[in-house]
Amino acid sequence: FPQLKKNIIAPFDRRYRRWQIFLVLLVAYSAWASPFMLAFEKVATTNAIIIIDLVVDGFFTIDIVFTFFVAYLDESTYLLVDEHKKIASRYLMTPGFALDVASTLPFQLMYIISGKNINRTVFGMLSLLRLWRLRRVSEMFARLEKDIRFSYFWTRSVKLIVVMLFVLHSTACLHYWMAYHDQLSKKTWLGDLVPNFKEQSIWLGYIYAIYFSISTLTTVGYGDLHAENTSEKIFGIFIMLFNIGFTSYIIGNITNLIVHEATRTSVMRDNSNEVSRYARKNRLPTILRAQMMQHVQLKLKTVELQQEEMLANLPKAIRLNITRHLFQQTVESAYLFKGVSEKFKTHLVDEMQAEYFPSKVNIIQQMEIPADFYIVVTGELEVLTNEDGIEKLWSNLHPADMAGEIGVIFNIPQPFTVRSKSICQVVRIGNSHFSQTVELHIEEGKMILSNFLQFL
Amino acid sequence: FPQLKKNIIAPFDRRYRRWQIFLVLLVAYSAWASPFMLAFEKVATTNAIIIIDLVVDGFFTIDIVFTFFVAYLDESTYLLVDEHKKIASRYLMTPGFALDVASTLPFQLMYIISGKNINRTVFGMLSLLRLWRLRRVSEMFARLEKDIRFSYFWTRSVKLIVVMLFVLHSTACLHYWMAYHDQLSKKTWLGDLVPNFKEQSIWLGYIYAIYFSISTLTTVGYGDLHAENTSEKIFGIFIMLFNIGFTSYIIGNITNLIVHEATRTSVMRDNSNEVSRYARKNRLPTILRAQMMQHVQLKLKTVELQQEEMLANLPKAIRLNITRHLFQQTVESAYLFKGVSEKFKTHLVDEMQAEYFPSKVNIIQQMEIPADFYIVVTGELEVLTNEDGIEKLWSNLHPADMAGEIGVIFNIPQPFTVRSKSICQVVRIGNSHFSQTVELHIEEGKMILSNFLQFL
Amino acid sequence: FPQLKKNIIAPFDRRYRRWQIFLVLLVAYSAWASPFMLAFEKVATTNAIIIIDLVVDGFFTIDIVFTFFVAYLDESTYLLVDEHKKIASRYLMTPGFALDVASTLPFQLMYIISGKNINRTVFGMLSLLRLWRLRRVSEMFARLEKDIRFSYFWTRSVKLIVVMLFVLHSTACLHYWMAYHDQLSKKTWLGDLVPNFKEQSIWLGYIYAIYFSISTLTTVGYGDLHAENTSEKIFGIFIMLFNIGFTSYIIGNITNLIVHEATRTSVMRDNSNEVSRYARKNRLPTILRAQMMQHVQLKLKTVELQQEEMLANLPKAIRLNITRHLFQQTVESAYLFKGVSEKFKTHLVDEMQAEYFPSKVNIIQQMEIPADFYIVVTGELEVLTNEDGIEKLWSNLHPADMAGEIGVIFNIPQPFTVRSKSICQVVRIGNSHFSQTVELHIEEGKMILSNFLQFL
Amino acid sequence: FPQLKKNIIAPFDRRYRRWQIFLVLLVAYSAWASPFMLAFEKVATTNAIIIIDLVVDGFFTIDIVFTFFVAYLDESTYLLVDEHKKIASRYLMTPGFALDVASTLPFQLMYIISGKNINRTVFGMLSLLRLWRLRRVSEMFARLEKDIRFSYFWTRSVKLIVVMLFVLHSTACLHYWMAYHDQLSKKTWLGDLVPNFKEQSIWLGYIYAIYFSISTLTTVGYGDLHAENTSEKIFGIFIMLFNIGFTSYIIGNITNLIVHEATRTSVMRDNSNEVSRYARKNRLPTILRAQMMQHVQLKLKTVELQQEEMLANLPKAIRLNITRHLFQQTVESAYLFKGVSEKFKTHLVDEMQAEYFPSKVNIIQQMEIPADFYIVVTGELEVLTNEDGIEKLWSNLHPADMAGEIGVIFNIPQPFTVRSKSICQVVRIGNSHFSQTVELHIEEGKMILSNFLQFL
Repeated sequence: FPQLKKNIIAPFDRRYRRWQIFLVLLVAYSAWASPFMLAFEKVATTNAIIIIDLVVDGFFTIDIVFTFFVAYLDESTYLLVDEHKKIASRYLMTPGFALDVASTLPFQLMYIISGKNINRTVFGMLSLLRLWRLRRVSEMFARLEKDIRFSYFWTRSVKLIVVMLFVLHSTACLHYWMAYHDQLSKKTWLGDLVPNFKEQSIWLGYIYAIYFSISTLTTVGYGDLHAENTSEKIFGIFIMLFNIGFTSYIIGNITNLIVHEATRTSVMRDNSNEVSRYARKNRLPTILRAQMMQHVQLKLKTVELQQEEMLANLPKAIRLNITRHLFQQTVESAYLFKGVSEKFKTHLVDEMQAEYFPSKVNIIQQMEIPADFYIVVTGELEVLTNEDGIEKLWSNLHPADMAGEIGVIFNIPQPFTVRSKSICQVVRIGNSHFSQTVELHIEEGKMILSNFLQFL
Repeated sequence: FPQLKKNIIAPFDRRYRRWQIFLVLLVAYSAWASPFMLAFEKVATTNAIIIIDLVVDGFFTIDIVFTFFVAYLDESTYLLVDEHKKIASRYLMTPGFALDVASTLPFQLMYIISGKNINRTVFGMLSLLRLWRLRRVSEMFARLEKDIRFSYFWTRSVKLIVVMLFVLHSTACLHYWMAYHDQLSKKTWLGDLVPNFKEQSIWLGYIYAIYFSISTLTTVGYGDLHAENTSEKIFGIFIMLFNIGFTSYIIGNITNLIVHEATRTSVMRDNSNEVSRYARKNRLPTILRAQMMQHVQLKLKTVELQQEEMLANLPKAIRLNITRHLFQQTVESAYLFKGVSEKFKTHLVDEMQAEYFPSKVNIIQQMEIPADFYIVVTGELEVLTNEDGIEKLWSNLHPADMAGEIGVIFNIPQPFTVRSKSICQVVRIGNSHFSQTVELHIEEGKMILSNFLQFL
Repeated sequence: FPQLKKNIIAPFDRRYRRWQIFLVLLVAYSAWASPFMLAFEKVATTNAIIIIDLVVDGFFTIDIVFTFFVAYLDESTYLLVDEHKKIASRYLMTPGFALDVASTLPFQLMYIISGKNINRTVFGMLSLLRLWRLRRVSEMFARLEKDIRFSYFWTRSVKLIVVMLFVLHSTACLHYWMAYHDQLSKKTWLGDLVPNFKEQSIWLGYIYAIYFSISTLTTVGYGDLHAENTSEKIFGIFIMLFNIGFTSYIIGNITNLIVHEATRTSVMRDNSNEVSRYARKNRLPTILRAQMMQHVQLKLKTVELQQEEMLANLPKAIRLNITRHLFQQTVESAYLFKGVSEKFKTHLVDEMQAEYFPSKVNIIQQMEIPADFYIVVTGELEVLTNEDGIEKLWSNLHPADMAGEIGVIFNIPQPFTVRSKSICQVVRIGNSHFSQTVELHIEEGKMILSNFLQFL
Repeated sequence: FPQLKKNIIAPFDRRYRRWQIFLVLLVAYSAWASPFMLAFEKVATTNAIIIIDLVVDGFFTIDIVFTFFVAYLDESTYLLVDEHKKIASRYLMTPGFALDVASTLPFQLMYIISGKNINRTVFGMLSLLRLWRLRRVSEMFARLEKDIRFSYFWTRSVKLIVVMLFVLHSTACLHYWMAYHDQLSKKTWLGDLVPNFKEQSIWLGYIYAIYFSISTLTTVGYGDLHAENTSEKIFGIFIMLFNIGFTSYIIGNITNLIVHEATRTSVMRDNSNEVSRYARKNRLPTILRAQMMQHVQLKLKTVELQQEEMLANLPKAIRLNITRHLFQQTVESAYLFKGVSEKFKTHLVDEMQAEYFPSKVNIIQQMEIPADFYIVVTGELEVLTNEDGIEKLWSNLHPADMAGEIGVIFNIPQPFTVRSKSICQVVRIGNSHFSQTVELHIEEGKMILSNFLQFL
């Protein structure tokens, strides 16, 4: 990590991250408390709540101060800016600063200090400013969604649930507030069913309000609770307008997740189906058909081990480092490259490719024009000759053994058939790349030939 | 299949698979019985039910024992592990073992043996542990979804229906349980409508409960049945919260299936539209337009027979086997390759390609630079010459006849136009690949020339 | 079209198609009548209805006879089969034949003939067999969806509406049937609201039934009508189970259509955005930025005229025909190719490409290495020289004029800048393809040179 | 912009665009007023409303006149047509003209002039013709969706909200109209709840109507308001039929937006996951793994700066202008190309590519075969030698310095390792393209060599 100026915190500093997570927990409290305190005034004016509120506000005040000491990432150069002046001016210029301050003022306390003369509802409404803090939750989820350590599915699902609970809670509190402040509280959604609800416990009112909200949100609408007077009907109109969007949002999100999850299975199925249809329509022999299916399934299982495309997108320098790491040892273990210079091996390795074969597949066909030769990495192969249609086992190949090199070196049709005995991984070296490399390094070419003759 | 140690069963053993399917049927019983027995105590304590439960538990006990003798697939090497010790330690380490045992204990019997002194509900709740067995259903569907012998559409649909029925059944049982155990059973969702429901048949109670559950789940919410007391309202809140997710899950799944099904039609339509628009905008003559449309439609019909891309992804060894199987016979039947060595034919076949033409298409144009020649596989072609704008029929080509070879062998512009008479399949041999092969095998080149001269 | 045997009709024969469409109209009647007659017995037994039913059944009987004379398409060879014996055996083997016959028996008449002794409901249920005819509607929609003369969006939408209306109608009829046949018809969904509904008009009953069905289907569930007795509740459970699937099906389909429609706009926007972001981030000069945006927009407008990919997928023979049709005239009008042989032009045309340029774009840059030259098809270009940074207009190019040929012929850096004055279409001829063609035809090369010198 | 004939306005003229936007505002008024005036007759006949209507109609009359002077874009040539006669005949031929005129006739006034003798409802219905003006809103949204200055998400969302509000408003007005014109107004949806609604304020009636409409549209269906008589039930059936489509339309649109938004995040996650899995499975060393992850993240951040594919789709002329703009200065600042001719530099620049590297990545590996060399644009690199496994810092490279040119010029293995110290941008010049360019310009090749020797 780059060195920052004194007293400046990096935004990805571990301790700062933890502080942010702690603040998100406080936000959760604020999000729950702000609407609740508005609806249930009795609770809002207890001493315990007022003290908790003050403490929470204190922590957010500390965070406002902190923000002046946190470096930020410049969007055009991708570099961290750690100059005090720039950080301060950037923070002060955004509307975020004003809102941060406004959402930290202790309205509850001001109300009590003011001698409770002013309308309480005004202060209740002002404390809804605390909901500005919710942007921290939204930022946290945006960050989590991009973090591959967390499952995308669960991050999105938790986000949806959190949003839904908050919407429910807020709507319920507003519903209760409306019923409570109605002048003729008999003709309200709650008063109609529970005439003496004001004397009843807060718990009962809250449950009924949540039940009413969710039966509207889910569009169940039993009808046992429903808007009674005009102002409730107007509120209901807005709630339902909002719900149609919100329900669609939930359905859309879940559809997106399901489509995303299902894509992998469908790609796999489509591949298998294609192979199977092709084999059936062309009436390929059963053994060939089985080999094709095995290959498709193996490829799906080993998909993490190949990924040519992903490798092709990496810069050449990184790509070479990877192939060197993967194949250097294999090349060094092969008898053909004993005593050959580092330079030669490095060059050879650059275009090697790993391949997987299921069992019982002919990797090399007798009499085929040599295009590649192989070094065995794992598994076992068998070398066969076909004389007058009768297959004869010549030898077995084990890790570090080579296959097909005779054809390539003498440039003659392959003298043997090579077949996998079990699932196996081999490294493929292309004929043309091999020739090119040998041409560039005549000396090592001779050494390879001598290695080969010795082996024979 | 690989040889396994004695007394070890392969996980894909046919008899073991059948045993697993049998267990899934028992799970279906458990899934139905567990919530039902909780809700309808009268039924739960009949002797028949207790005996059935014991038998089912017995089968699952047997399966626990079996699991110690079933090999498993190692996730990093893709090899079967058949060592007793490893299998046992793997099973004992997972939480699955503890849950398997816990879900097999015969709680019903324990309750009776204990003299029915302990609270019955506790045992009812404990027997919900049996729902752990549902993981077998989930695993079965995961397997079926990947199995191309079963339609993806129907597998997913059946899964959705099964999940929905289970959710409905469970919710209904819980609803009934709540109504039944309420102290003042008049003020319940059911008691309100059917005051004497406890004396009524179980059937009536179950129907009403299912009806209530489904009218909530589908968000119809008629309102004839609805939560009456606070605890029912709390339960309703959770049910509705769950429903909003579950309904979205169903919609998302079905959307996914429809999008998937519709993709093929839309690809087809987009292709046709593109061709049609191109022809219209460029004012191509009607005959050319018709040929283009015919080609697009033919290609869609014969899509299983081509699939270059799928073939390109197979390992070279398998690919060569396929082309050899498909084209060897065609090449052998062609007059030009009579007496030519196996090696030559094998080499030639490696880069052949099958192509389909609708009727009335010019496959070769008189005077065109020769790039390919063709062997007819099915259908009929006509050879035409164009002199002073008048077309004259020269000859007809039938399966095993060749077209365009004159141009390729003498490297002169094609002397004839070749046109398909009906839908036909031909094998295409590229000029450059043919030359290369002949260069490698001078002797066979001569033989081909002599074949050709004889034919003339 | 291929010649068929005598007395055999091709399935795509125009008159046969019309007959099929006529039958679909009769099916629409059957689909409406079958459930309606079951529910409203009074109507079902009027003479008019019985006669109409007999006539409709007559037409379907004729179709069964017809089917023995209609050729079919073999699925593996894609050829029409017109042998009487094969057609007959194919039809008789499928379950379709038995169902076709069963759905044509005149149950209504049989009931009357039988002296109305047997239970009427049995016959009503039997006449539901007519719903088998609905497969014709489903087949028709499957065909329409693949037919690019009809909008996919509207075909799918009409299909959804038709399915929905049929579901509504059937459910409504079943609801009415249940209310009517209830022994204690006061405690039914309808009897509860309209006690004397049996004396009321059929119209009122049908409206109420449809209203009940649709308020359940759309999950509105006002509650003014709802299932009253146990059997209605059971029916309601099945209806709602079906609805959850059906609603999801509608939502899924419409989502599919919207996603499909929106894709084009989003591809366009993504392209524009990418260009715009690239230009902004790299601080490209305004004029270059404007050219890039113009190009992207032009490309979207002229998308039907290019479509390289679509052309690449056509067989070579068809592709050559298209390029010849498009460019032959342009080449003939160009001064450079006066008197040049047909063969040469044909060869040259084969790799030509049309390109569009917005106004004020430099098509050729002074001093650039010549890679292509151009023939103007539509629009106007200006030829400029840049001396000491001052641009001087040299000449204007009009359709049939050429640009950049000097650089290509002498293989020198382009002496002029060529810029489009308005939107224009040009044909591009690649340097290397031109050289190759000239090498193959030395004589015409000389003629081209002489044309060129004359022009100078 | 092209010059147009006198008195002809271009459709994209700024003042004309503003006039169009002004008309859309008037359409908003019409869309609100037309259904409202039908339902609430009392309001419709006030003088203020009649005058406003006349003024609005006046503006639309002016627009009809204007349309005869606005050029249009020909769909096949993409050119503006500015001939009076063509413009007029095109407008008069479309049904748009007739509808434009019909929707501008002042029906309200005609009603009053006619002495209010004719049925008022007829005129009310006729004034619904004004809804034809809504096509302007639809056209505006179609234009906005394609305009990249506006967010697609918000444009679509606003469109959905506008459509929904209009549907709600219209349905509400029709509901009220039905209740008001019912002969026995007690048995209506509204009269049932508010018997004296005709004497109540318009505001109350409108709120109840909206509330009823939205509780149907969102499928909440509390049941406190519901269709009472047969005609209301029929209307309800159509409303619900429409709603099922409309709700699906909203869900489909929002799903589309969410899927579109989520795609970017998922592509990013998939890339990261793939890299991470590959590294883990192949057990790559931690440092290599970190480099790979850094690269993937850097690539995502700098995605706007690369975009090879987008560049590849631009015509060659524009592409060259861009590369020249981007790299000319970099090449001029490099010591190797001092004094080299403009022509040479232009040629060299044509195939240059910008690349980004995260910190601590080996850009060139000691001993590797030289394939490219680099000019530093931003950031810092370090040059290292590795002797006996110990790395020694040779020098630091800053912007305008070059790396790897020694290997390329002498065609020897790279003598140094070059590693990025911080995030850096370099320009890559391919070995082969460089050699080709030098071959074409022997003189400048010598100059480059002399520059190089001087540097040493």
